[in-house]
Amino acid sequence: MTLQDLQTQLSKHKFNALLITRNNRFLRQDILPEENKIMELTGFSGSAGTLLVTPVSAYLFVDGRYEIQAAREVNPEDVHVVCKTQDTLVSWLKKNSTPLDKWTIAYNPECLSVREFEQLQRELPKFDFVADQYHLEGEKISLEKFSAFEHEPQFSGVSAEEKLGQVIVELKKHFFHGFFIGSADSVSWLLNLRSRCLPDTPVLRAAALVDILGNITVFADNIEFPQADLQFTIAPFADLEKYLKNYKKQKIGYDGNFTSQKAFLLAQKHHIDFVPAQDPCQKLKAVKNPVELEGIRQAHLRDGVAVCRFLHWLEKEGLGKTELDIVDKLYDFRKQGNNFFSVSFDTIAGFAANGAVVHYRPQEKTNLKLEKGSLLLLDSGAQYFDGTTDITRTIAVGKPKKEMIDNFTYVLKGHISLSSAVFPQGTSGMKLDTLARNPLWRQGLDYQHGTGHGVGCFLNVHEGPLSISSAGSRYPLEAGMITSIEPGYYKEDHYGIRIENLVEVVPAAYPGMLKFAYLTLAPIDKRLINKYLLSTEEINWINNYHQNVFKKIQKYLNTEERNWLKDVCSPL
Amino acid sequence: MTLQDLQTQLSKHKFNALLITRNNRFLRQDILPEENKIMELTGFSGSAGTLLVTPVSAYLFVDGRYEIQAAREVNPEDVHVVCKTQDTLVSWLKKNSTPLDKWTIAYNPECLSVREFEQLQRELPKFDFVADQYHLEGEKISLEKFSAFEHEPQFSGVSAEEKLGQVIVELKKHFFHGFFIGSADSVSWLLNLRSRCLPDTPVLRAAALVDILGNITVFADNIEFPQADLQFTIAPFADLEKYLKNYKKQKIGYDGNFTSQKAFLLAQKHHIDFVPAQDPCQKLKAVKNPVELEGIRQAHLRDGVAVCRFLHWLEKEGLGKTELDIVDKLYDFRKQGNNFFSVSFDTIAGFAANGAVVHYRPQEKTNLKLEKGSLLLLDSGAQYFDGTTDITRTIAVGKPKKEMIDNFTYVLKGHISLSSAVFPQGTSGMKLDTLARNPLWRQGLDYQHGTGHGVGCFLNVHEGPLSISSAGSRYPLEAGMITSIEPGYYKEDHYGIRIENLVEVVPAAYPGMLKFAYLTLAPIDKRLINKYLLSTEEINWINNYHQNVFKKIQKYLNTEERNWLKDVCSPL
Repeated sequence: MTLQDLQTQLSKHKFNALLITRNNRFLRQDILPEENKIMELTGFSGSAGTLLVTPVSAYLFVDGRYEIQAAREVNPEDVHVVCKTQDTLVSWLKKNSTPLDKWTIAYNPECLSVREFEQLQRELPKFDFVADQYHLEGEKISLEKFSAFEHEPQFSGVSAEEKLGQVIVELKKHFFHGFFIGSADSVSWLLNLRSRCLPDTPVLRAAALVDILGNITVFADNIEFPQADLQFTIAPFADLEKYLKNYKKQKIGYDGNFTSQKAFLLAQKHHIDFVPAQDPCQKLKAVKNPVELEGIRQAHLRDGVAVCRFLHWLEKEGLGKTELDIVDKLYDFRKQGNNFFSVSFDTIAGFAANGAVVHYRPQEKTNLKLEKGSLLLLDSGAQYFDGTTDITRTIAVGKPKKEMIDNFTYVLKGHISLSSAVFPQGTSGMKLDTLARNPLWRQGLDYQHGTGHGVGCFLNVHEGPLSISSAGSRYPLEAGMITSIEPGYYKEDHYGIRIENLVEVVPAAYPGMLKFAYLTLAPIDKRLINKYLLSTEEINWINNYHQNVFKKIQKYLNTEERNWLKDVCSPL
Repeated sequence: MTLQDLQTQLSKHKFNALLITRNNRFLRQDILPEENKIMELTGFSGSAGTLLVTPVSAYLFVDGRYEIQAAREVNPEDVHVVCKTQDTLVSWLKKNSTPLDKWTIAYNPECLSVREFEQLQRELPKFDFVADQYHLEGEKISLEKFSAFEHEPQFSGVSAEEKLGQVIVELKKHFFHGFFIGSADSVSWLLNLRSRCLPDTPVLRAAALVDILGNITVFADNIEFPQADLQFTIAPFADLEKYLKNYKKQKIGYDGNFTSQKAFLLAQKHHIDFVPAQDPCQKLKAVKNPVELEGIRQAHLRDGVAVCRFLHWLEKEGLGKTELDIVDKLYDFRKQGNNFFSVSFDTIAGFAANGAVVHYRPQEKTNLKLEKGSLLLLDSGAQYFDGTTDITRTIAVGKPKKEMIDNFTYVLKGHISLSSAVFPQGTSGMKLDTLARNPLWRQGLDYQHGTGHGVGCFLNVHEGPLSISSAGSRYPLEAGMITSIEPGYYKEDHYGIRIENLVEVVPAAYPGMLKFAYLTLAPIDKRLINKYLLSTEEINWINNYHQNVFKKIQKYLNTEERNWLKDVCSPL
């Protein structure tokens, strides 16, 4: 369906607008290109955004990360890009409707979470939201059949039975009879199952209903399940209503972040005592078990070897290569590692001005060749059966300008400040965010994205509920959690800088205090460091980090690579 | 009434408990000793706490600042002290009632804000809260008559008429017909009136009803008002109902933080469309006008002269003097300054172990003599007609121990880190708090109080809505606001350290960024600084600060004082 067709329909049915989220029925999870209605209608390929279609126009609401990219990708005659810094969907709707208007806005209840819906209702009491699928095609279900496979005990560490027991304990604490688990990564974690439904994330696309008697119904389409120790019923998504209504008048929990408005409406229809609460799997999954932690460390060692070999290749051969060449070459190095499954997201290789597009993905038409005098921003990661990686390095190509070096150094100061923080138990990511930004703020610089996100174990590379960000989460950090630390700086039309490591939250030497231990092992480009802007403590951090990288990685390299690594890891 | 009498009453009337807040009818404002029911019943003199009296026992809930002091002051046989780190009132009530109990808890609606009440109801849905004044004496109204006086234009900068105009603009923005202003400091600010009702704070103890037609009714008891340009009606508090009911079916705003549950119940009774919102005066008052800012700077210069002269005296004559001697002497120096009105709170002079009691006030029975080998923590301030001051210095008496020096230096690092921060507009105090704690956290140290509070202009020394704290406010800092910066460290039974300056929020050199400019002018004890723990940048901060103190203060000192100041302000 084209935007024009949709507008004709809207006008015919007297709707003021149609709200299109970037969600599929798995809400905030990865979506496949064919499920991406916003891309289909506007050409915008970013990973976050909301589209409001009116009978005469269309408005694409994006955050700071995507302002530049959205403007590049949409046709400005059809679609107006509105950045969050200027207006949100809510503030825009408030401004663009008169007090007397009562707008009717259609939405697809399958693709809006209860939480998103409630927030819209609360903030826009004057608007009527109508669950409407008339104008909207239902979600396209791929007919391709995928096989689910077991995440083996040597990697998952805890059996599905034991996880089910942990979940039941949580449900009983809150007097729930059961829980609707709408989050596919929670279901994958709970059942120790994975699949190749998505290209970069081994998540099993399924939802589940679990009760304290141990009954599990898994909702999934076109998935073939392996034999499993834990017994559960498998049903198509279309049967959700049939199974839900068995719980009439029972107290069933749901997490509004991961439950569609459609499931909510069904639960209401069948008089289920549907109570909002945090999905218990989210909390249990965030704190990794000892087997997962050891796997994650090993995966980072393997990933570090691949990245170091790639960086050596880049220095020798990089000049004149394109961003897409780089993506391929890095993949070649990574896929040689044991337990390699896939990349963990489309590699971002942004040279020069492309580096300033925060979530840039190289394509044929944007593909730049590496030339002397600018920076390559390279954000990539891999899924290994034993862990998920995510690393960003910014690399000088040719001789960098003084300004680039200084700005890189301020980003590095922020990275070091947060990486070496010690903080009391109970501290939230929101409070820690300030440490990474402080050295940049002091120069009048900042970045329009979060500082850190939780990371799954052979699951989503962005995993909640942990988040280190400005708007951020109040969720407290706990030992055993994994987070990224990734401050940056972006000079539009010129270059982008980001330095990202994954770290593990570990107990500090002082009782009740926590700190970070780094997982990522790859050199930080010393040609971009102005050591005169660093304190002794900061210089020591870098030197220790590099010494550790060399010590751990060198034995997996050939002589030429080892000599190169020794040099780039030598003290400042 | 004694605790025992109260318990007999409770038991007779079958209440499970009686909740006693430390509020009077002005809620979170200063209270007079005779209004302090918690002190009357338990002996606890701290400025924050909640008492729960059951027929057989009593529980005093305090925060970390008061844990030590409360344990010292109450009789442990009658009153159990419960610290927030262990249990809050809510978590305690949840634990100590079985699922089948339906507790009835009496409370005085005059002394509980709407916000506090709603929070209790939300968090304790199983409990019945009964507005009950039967067991409680009504608030004692002092029969002493106070005179209100004008805060003159040369100090207030903006006339009451103009302020009323600003408030009306705010009300119209939100379609309010009027607003109930329950906060006495808002009323004082709006009317440019002050009084001597309280010993340390020139606040006029009054509430007001304001409407967009410019009608003002001021509720106050036993206050004589001067002739004023702005016309308003004066009524006793008991007439609140009579005036409120004139606004039947009208949209009247109220701020749940500053409105008693009693006023709320009256508004409900008379079918007023009573709508929660932020008191518009709070926001307007927080951003000081240019005349106020200049006055505040001048008041700090005068206060700095008094503190410097006092510190010189202390070094020469302090040994053997008591904490109470120090309080008197500091007062003597301060009262010599122009525009001096009163201290801004009871001076905290805590020597050695007394310094570890965060909100200690010296009394005859605790009064220590200064001896060599420990620290004096001195937190004090003054009300001048042109501004309010608040400063804490920690002073070595004799030769300090290495551990004291190092811990002082870590507190200083936190103080410098926050003082020299640059941050984007829109940053909240909660996010900045981390900067002051980070250097302490890295040593496993922390402090159980906020890092900063807003400060009024010849008004409350603790003024909202700004707050730099851990639990803290999301209220964004704006240019023209005043805040304290006061990290500390307390070693129970040994000593306390706190370094507090007031600062003004000012634009930074970069567009959209803010920073702090210091107001407080008094040396920081160099004998307590281990310069080897400081970075060059930190050393520069201290040297610049001291140079500025000397430059501004020296001309008001005699030769001996000047020589002393030059020495203590010389570069590290």
